[in-house]
Amino acid sequence: MLKQKSEEYRGFRTPGIRLSEELLPDVVEHRTDRVLVTLYAFHAFDKAHLVMLAEERLIPLGDAAAMLRVLRETERLGIEQARLEAGGGMHSGEQVLIRRLSEEVGGRIHLGRSSGDLGVVSTRIVQRDKLLDVLLHLNRVRSAVISQAEAHVDTVMPGYTHGQHAQPTTLGHQLAAWAAVLERDFERAVQAYRRINVSPAGAAILTGSNFPLNRHRTSELLGFDRPAPSTFDAILSHDTELDSFCVLAILNADLGRWAEDLMLWSTSEFGMVDVPDRYCGTSSIMMQKKNPYAPQYIKGLGAASLGGLVTAFHAEKGPTGMPILDRQYSRDALWRLYDDTVRDLSWVHDLLPALRWNTSLMRARAGEHWAQATDIAGALVREKGLPWRTAHQIVGILVRVGYERGIGPADVTPDLLDEAAVAYMGRPVGLSEESLRKAVDPENFVRERAIFGGPAPQEVLRRLADFRATLARDEATYTDARQRVDEARRKLESAIDALVGSEP
Amino acid sequence: MLKQKSEEYRGFRTPGIRLSEELLPDVVEHRTDRVLVTLYAFHAFDKAHLVMLAEERLIPLGDAAAMLRVLRETERLGIEQARLEAGGGMHSGEQVLIRRLSEEVGGRIHLGRSSGDLGVVSTRIVQRDKLLDVLLHLNRVRSAVISQAEAHVDTVMPGYTHGQHAQPTTLGHQLAAWAAVLERDFERAVQAYRRINVSPAGAAILTGSNFPLNRHRTSELLGFDRPAPSTFDAILSHDTELDSFCVLAILNADLGRWAEDLMLWSTSEFGMVDVPDRYCGTSSIMMQKKNPYAPQYIKGLGAASLGGLVTAFHAEKGPTGMPILDRQYSRDALWRLYDDTVRDLSWVHDLLPALRWNTSLMRARAGEHWAQATDIAGALVREKGLPWRTAHQIVGILVRVGYERGIGPADVTPDLLDEAAVAYMGRPVGLSEESLRKAVDPENFVRERAIFGGPAPQEVLRRLADFRATLARDEATYTDARQRVDEARRKLESAIDALVGSEP
Amino acid sequence: MLKQKSEEYRGFRTPGIRLSEELLPDVVEHRTDRVLVTLYAFHAFDKAHLVMLAEERLIPLGDAAAMLRVLRETERLGIEQARLEAGGGMHSGEQVLIRRLSEEVGGRIHLGRSSGDLGVVSTRIVQRDKLLDVLLHLNRVRSAVISQAEAHVDTVMPGYTHGQHAQPTTLGHQLAAWAAVLERDFERAVQAYRRINVSPAGAAILTGSNFPLNRHRTSELLGFDRPAPSTFDAILSHDTELDSFCVLAILNADLGRWAEDLMLWSTSEFGMVDVPDRYCGTSSIMMQKKNPYAPQYIKGLGAASLGGLVTAFHAEKGPTGMPILDRQYSRDALWRLYDDTVRDLSWVHDLLPALRWNTSLMRARAGEHWAQATDIAGALVREKGLPWRTAHQIVGILVRVGYERGIGPADVTPDLLDEAAVAYMGRPVGLSEESLRKAVDPENFVRERAIFGGPAPQEVLRRLADFRATLARDEATYTDARQRVDEARRKLESAIDALVGSEP
Amino acid sequence: MLKQKSEEYRGFRTPGIRLSEELLPDVVEHRTDRVLVTLYAFHAFDKAHLVMLAEERLIPLGDAAAMLRVLRETERLGIEQARLEAGGGMHSGEQVLIRRLSEEVGGRIHLGRSSGDLGVVSTRIVQRDKLLDVLLHLNRVRSAVISQAEAHVDTVMPGYTHGQHAQPTTLGHQLAAWAAVLERDFERAVQAYRRINVSPAGAAILTGSNFPLNRHRTSELLGFDRPAPSTFDAILSHDTELDSFCVLAILNADLGRWAEDLMLWSTSEFGMVDVPDRYCGTSSIMMQKKNPYAPQYIKGLGAASLGGLVTAFHAEKGPTGMPILDRQYSRDALWRLYDDTVRDLSWVHDLLPALRWNTSLMRARAGEHWAQATDIAGALVREKGLPWRTAHQIVGILVRVGYERGIGPADVTPDLLDEAAVAYMGRPVGLSEESLRKAVDPENFVRERAIFGGPAPQEVLRRLADFRATLARDEATYTDARQRVDEARRKLESAIDALVGSEP
Repeated sequence: MLKQKSEEYRGFRTPGIRLSEELLPDVVEHRTDRVLVTLYAFHAFDKAHLVMLAEERLIPLGDAAAMLRVLRETERLGIEQARLEAGGGMHSGEQVLIRRLSEEVGGRIHLGRSSGDLGVVSTRIVQRDKLLDVLLHLNRVRSAVISQAEAHVDTVMPGYTHGQHAQPTTLGHQLAAWAAVLERDFERAVQAYRRINVSPAGAAILTGSNFPLNRHRTSELLGFDRPAPSTFDAILSHDTELDSFCVLAILNADLGRWAEDLMLWSTSEFGMVDVPDRYCGTSSIMMQKKNPYAPQYIKGLGAASLGGLVTAFHAEKGPTGMPILDRQYSRDALWRLYDDTVRDLSWVHDLLPALRWNTSLMRARAGEHWAQATDIAGALVREKGLPWRTAHQIVGILVRVGYERGIGPADVTPDLLDEAAVAYMGRPVGLSEESLRKAVDPENFVRERAIFGGPAPQEVLRRLADFRATLARDEATYTDARQRVDEARRKLESAIDALVGSEP
Repeated sequence: MLKQKSEEYRGFRTPGIRLSEELLPDVVEHRTDRVLVTLYAFHAFDKAHLVMLAEERLIPLGDAAAMLRVLRETERLGIEQARLEAGGGMHSGEQVLIRRLSEEVGGRIHLGRSSGDLGVVSTRIVQRDKLLDVLLHLNRVRSAVISQAEAHVDTVMPGYTHGQHAQPTTLGHQLAAWAAVLERDFERAVQAYRRINVSPAGAAILTGSNFPLNRHRTSELLGFDRPAPSTFDAILSHDTELDSFCVLAILNADLGRWAEDLMLWSTSEFGMVDVPDRYCGTSSIMMQKKNPYAPQYIKGLGAASLGGLVTAFHAEKGPTGMPILDRQYSRDALWRLYDDTVRDLSWVHDLLPALRWNTSLMRARAGEHWAQATDIAGALVREKGLPWRTAHQIVGILVRVGYERGIGPADVTPDLLDEAAVAYMGRPVGLSEESLRKAVDPENFVRERAIFGGPAPQEVLRRLADFRATLARDEATYTDARQRVDEARRKLESAIDALVGSEP
Repeated sequence: MLKQKSEEYRGFRTPGIRLSEELLPDVVEHRTDRVLVTLYAFHAFDKAHLVMLAEERLIPLGDAAAMLRVLRETERLGIEQARLEAGGGMHSGEQVLIRRLSEEVGGRIHLGRSSGDLGVVSTRIVQRDKLLDVLLHLNRVRSAVISQAEAHVDTVMPGYTHGQHAQPTTLGHQLAAWAAVLERDFERAVQAYRRINVSPAGAAILTGSNFPLNRHRTSELLGFDRPAPSTFDAILSHDTELDSFCVLAILNADLGRWAEDLMLWSTSEFGMVDVPDRYCGTSSIMMQKKNPYAPQYIKGLGAASLGGLVTAFHAEKGPTGMPILDRQYSRDALWRLYDDTVRDLSWVHDLLPALRWNTSLMRARAGEHWAQATDIAGALVREKGLPWRTAHQIVGILVRVGYERGIGPADVTPDLLDEAAVAYMGRPVGLSEESLRKAVDPENFVRERAIFGGPAPQEVLRRLADFRATLARDEATYTDARQRVDEARRKLESAIDALVGSEP
Repeated sequence: MLKQKSEEYRGFRTPGIRLSEELLPDVVEHRTDRVLVTLYAFHAFDKAHLVMLAEERLIPLGDAAAMLRVLRETERLGIEQARLEAGGGMHSGEQVLIRRLSEEVGGRIHLGRSSGDLGVVSTRIVQRDKLLDVLLHLNRVRSAVISQAEAHVDTVMPGYTHGQHAQPTTLGHQLAAWAAVLERDFERAVQAYRRINVSPAGAAILTGSNFPLNRHRTSELLGFDRPAPSTFDAILSHDTELDSFCVLAILNADLGRWAEDLMLWSTSEFGMVDVPDRYCGTSSIMMQKKNPYAPQYIKGLGAASLGGLVTAFHAEKGPTGMPILDRQYSRDALWRLYDDTVRDLSWVHDLLPALRWNTSLMRARAGEHWAQATDIAGALVREKGLPWRTAHQIVGILVRVGYERGIGPADVTPDLLDEAAVAYMGRPVGLSEESLRKAVDPENFVRERAIFGGPAPQEVLRRLADFRATLARDEATYTDARQRVDEARRKLESAIDALVGSEP
């Protein structure tokens, strides 16, 4: 009366069961190509769920063993291949089992489970695993940043604000700032990880089951930190996916800023850094061109991350349980973003030590555009007792007059400074030639700033030691998290061994 | 001394020409898989450019003919296959020609051209072609909407604001509103089309060429409306891509709203419409479920469109000419959005007439929750000369008291109305039973609203006739645009025939 | 029994009418401060609606005249003041009238009207009026851009792509590109204007009225182009507000790009342009600083526009009629965006001719970084018959060797070119010293590019003449639209005169 | 020679110092009205900086005491008033001091400081303080949610997915899910707090100072947890502001979802909940209307939050130090978002216990649309040993046939179930009447789900106890953070007392 048109078993999607019509091909939800990324997580959940069902005696041990054996066989063939042949999608595990073992046996796997927890468990496992990759690569970049910063504590360069020369600093100081930025990015990522690595398994669609599933056991076998304490929340709240987007959006905004710096500094006009040819392309018409390619992709990923985030927030909007398939678009985006982020972190890690800095130009520029002027005023405060504001105004006049007369920092004289002082306060200020020369020396500028967190080489090295210590702690955090996941994988296989062995 | 490591000719990317290193594999810009969508447009530009070069005698006629013959041969094989074998990407046409005809001949195609115009020409051609598909399917949906509206001018239903019953209207009136919405969507799309279908060909990277390229001819052969009047703007401005995103974002927000209505109205509680099974799925655990799938994908596409738009605007940010490869992410998104939009329009077109409306329930609901109360006040104004506000207040009291006493519109009496009137103004108002009954009749409510644009059946039909007339005009606009593009394709082939024929 | 607690008349919001409780103060919808922007439009609608009601004999002529007289009186006091005293908000007109004339008279104004059309009519009027300001200021900027472009057709400068020197062009050519960009921005704005300036008046909340309102007359009196053909669509569709956001987002992205150029070009390293001091600030610590301020606000407005757009799209999401008050946030944003946009256009208009260009530096830079290399290859094609690709490769080698040996374009010799040619194809190419010198001259580069839309001065002037002609047409479009609105205002006052006069 | 035009002292902005022209009025950066929110934080920083300068003997003790006295005086007047009179803005403290004490004294306050740290210190203080308010109100809402959940552990209602009836659950279970959601929101907020409450004071514009500022002391006096370990990062990284936006965007998306539920459930069709009148409005035309207002503002704030976030990310884009004033737009948005979030949390806190639930309707609905069907299949598995999938299919057929014949869960019989079983597997299944009745009882459905995190009343109460315990911990976290800030305030005043006292 009702069986499916084709020969193939399609379970609850067979027309004539609940619904009367075939789902239109392009409306098919669990479309194979969209879930390739999560296929391995469905497979892991299938195994862990079976183990738990058997251990709790909710299905016959023999059936469980037979099913686990088939799932292991598909691993030899490649689970992707095996599952695609069974129609693909989140329910392909059940399909494989029923086709090979009949509905009488394979029809038992889904007890107490739903597309709901299949979807959310797999989404969390994949986020967890990709986040671990981000943590690993982020730490590698942090290490490279700290090393480069150490190597450049003496590389004096201009610091910029509003695009204009602000004050001299060092490349080491600027890179140490990146160590701080990426430390926060790691913190965000690991904090999101803690919220994400929580198990929805056993929550089914929102109420769990009236079969006594052992949610703690499944959680343990899948490497989750603990089961979610509300079956309703576990399935129908998706703020942890928004967490992923926020982590990636900020991280890629940060990396994008660094890429913007590279783009700017490698212009002919700035000329401070040369990006190795292998990260660059030339032009099919302008053969002189050497275009930095990798930094543009890194910048662009910031745009894609923000767009992905907006898609996710917008897709979530609606009453509880109303938006479900809408989420497919943001989930597609999320997997790509994670992968591209790891790619970018890998580029940055390799590119950082390969950059060629024009250190002599950087040093020269640091002193050419009055970036050191702050210290002339400082000298007037220190040596002449002037209030800061008075000193500031006098040097302001000095700089303006300097520009008007074409006199730069290298040529400024105590006389000119006195002229400015007279203009401002009616009397000369009398700074010595020696003090003035010292004040306009960018290296001195940097050296004297041993304030906590400042650019003086020794201070930068002290802070870098702190960043290195935090990094070591964070590397241990990563290693521990990774090991817990690996250990769970081993536990799952042992449990399967025990079941399969017990029913040969 | 410098030739490439592998045997294959790779032209300007060969290490040892301008740059010394191989581009890292995952930094390769013109990545094959990312430009599959635009491959046919590169091919068309290759042909049109060659014809123009030959006609203007900028390359030898014999060489042009030989190259055009090879390009036509690749069409037999499938240009994708032929170009992928030559490395893929935007320069694969040149690669094919050089590999088959030597650099001496094939090396002539790129004269006066750049990756710049290759990129922008192809992006515009593909946008143009996909926009034409959107225009076509949008008009088909409009036609279906108008037909359904005509069929439902008498289907009385509640109109809602703030989620609450507002006033009775008809399904035909609500659908006629959609005719207006989609008419504006067509207008936006066709206006963007006019800005997009302008030829950057011959603009090279920003200055054109000092070879006397005939930009008008290439434009004509590629089906553009005219050449862009600034070579600088043609390559380095990308606001027309933002136009595409804006068109799609608004259109998909509009379709998404319609899908939200369907989701709401097909709940068990609303129960106004039944979506055919083929657009729905059931559940692997809750076998009673019939979940509307297609509407969720339609809603979700609104989210993806907004996200894509944000990616595009964000990727564009920067000084002129600074963001280039950043744009790859938004362009990827754009092609998917166009395709998914056409898919959704196609679903909506088929789904509209297949929806099953529970018209008796809709009719009953229209009168159950005091949606018709406006007309009781109207009757007091018309028959009793009360100011609107006074009438409004009296009926406001009536409704409150009705809710307090469990009296609905069907049971309301002149006495109760008088009670409210007394409460408000100290005297009864004396509306007759007949007037009151007429005032609470939802069908009468609708019938009396023959105001311009209102829900009275005859008025809806009049306005639908107007929408139909505009649609006819817009269909002609579409047909004309499509024919111009088709005609250009024929012109190009004729020009090639002439050249190939003249040099056998 | 029910009257309001305070003495003041508060109409339908009085507790004891429909609802029993006072609305919480911070939940009040039509909050006074949020609707100050639209207050004048409520006022206009109040007047036009009264005129129409009177002309159609839907309310007593005497009452209409009395009410119109009071409304005119409030104009003397300042409508803001008068309306704020009556509680502010969209219904403040009715409140004023009832307080002064009693509910018996003032209670008649709202016949056939709703908060729905009050809200949408006013939103459209304000958008219309602000769009007109944008159109006006945009045309003023376009005129300034064209004038500056004319003045700089001979100002040779580098053109950049990927942040690198691409090819020489002129400032006039780059500015002419801006003329094209802003022409499209005008087109978008005026197309949105046409969709926006359509009258929802008389649509009430979605069904219009069963009183025979003359919607065409109200539309005419309010300066709309025509009444909306669906009362349902007129109130419950808000895609025309999304239109506003799209227009502003693209326009401000365009202006932002120009501001990014200014920021880059005014760095010490680029040094191409000096922004007048009055658009800049200095620093409280770094007295040498001259920070471009205005360009940063212009750039930032691009960010605010994109954010506002996202707010609007997100607020709109939901079933028809469900999101209403949500829109308040995006509407607040919209008014600010419009005002800030006009401010920015005004800045740009004044700033453009005030910029000081370092034309000699720009000219020198255009030739220093091999931007002219394209033309060396061009010379090999033209004079030596080489295929483009062969010529391109030879010059690619030349440039690389030039960089390796520190030889720039000014010092390149035919011998070096021959060395590159031998390396590539085994034989020298023999370009004459004279041809080589001509090929590396940036001014010649520009002069020879008289291709349609190219940078040759005469060609730029031709295209600017076209842009000027289009601008003249667009100025007429603006003037015509403005005059229609002004004319409607006069019509409305005349109609009031007639009514007020007829009932002294 | 150069003094300012007006009489008023304007310090470094005086034309004739560094710059020659007056800043255009509408380009003024530190615009008074834009910094009103942060004015109190500038004031605190002024005081703490002076204390530190004095304690470190970097300025004369007498001058410090005089300045601190003046600052305290302004507190009596109201610092806003005093500072506005001195021109407003971030430098108004210095302006006040110089005007009252002359540049000789007041000109000393800014030593070692910059607009840079003034801006970032104040931004962080205000974020810190507003975040504390969010934490407080969030915990109050969590407490209310837990209380309501406890009160409703027996309130059976339908759970929905895809908008369709999924399974019975309880209102207590659904509210307990909210406890979990808001627990994560608190965690995000407090984690962001830890990153934000770090002191940039003493970092000046990026290099700190060559005066030996005690950054730890200033940090302590301002209630920061510690000084930022890089002066460069402290000023030029703004990812902690993005943190704020992410926290608010997710929190308001969560609250928005809850508001969407309210909107849906308070429709006439759902009718599950009644929102008190004081959160609702009626209509000026449809006097029957009771429109939920507050939930719409809550939903809308989600839109504003996402838009604000996009503004912030977009404004940040660019090389390090290039976007500065661009940020003004997102900062404006941030303050409003924080305030509106606290307003919404306050509404939710009050609204939750005031909602009136139609519990009998909810209970009835839970059983009317086959939401309990899962348990019929469960009974077949448990009692008849069927595989889950077989049982699922049989009940799928049962439901379809039920809909076809108009038979609902209340009327389903063992015979009908057998008919379905025969159709699927060729034989009846023989479930007893008693088992079937139990299986279709929604209360039994809920009661049996005592699985960890499930809806059984006792289990919900257990989990709520956990949530309450976590809340207690989080309340302590809040209190501790608030006390540290308050303690710092006292420390600062004591330090001032000491200084002011020492120099009468």
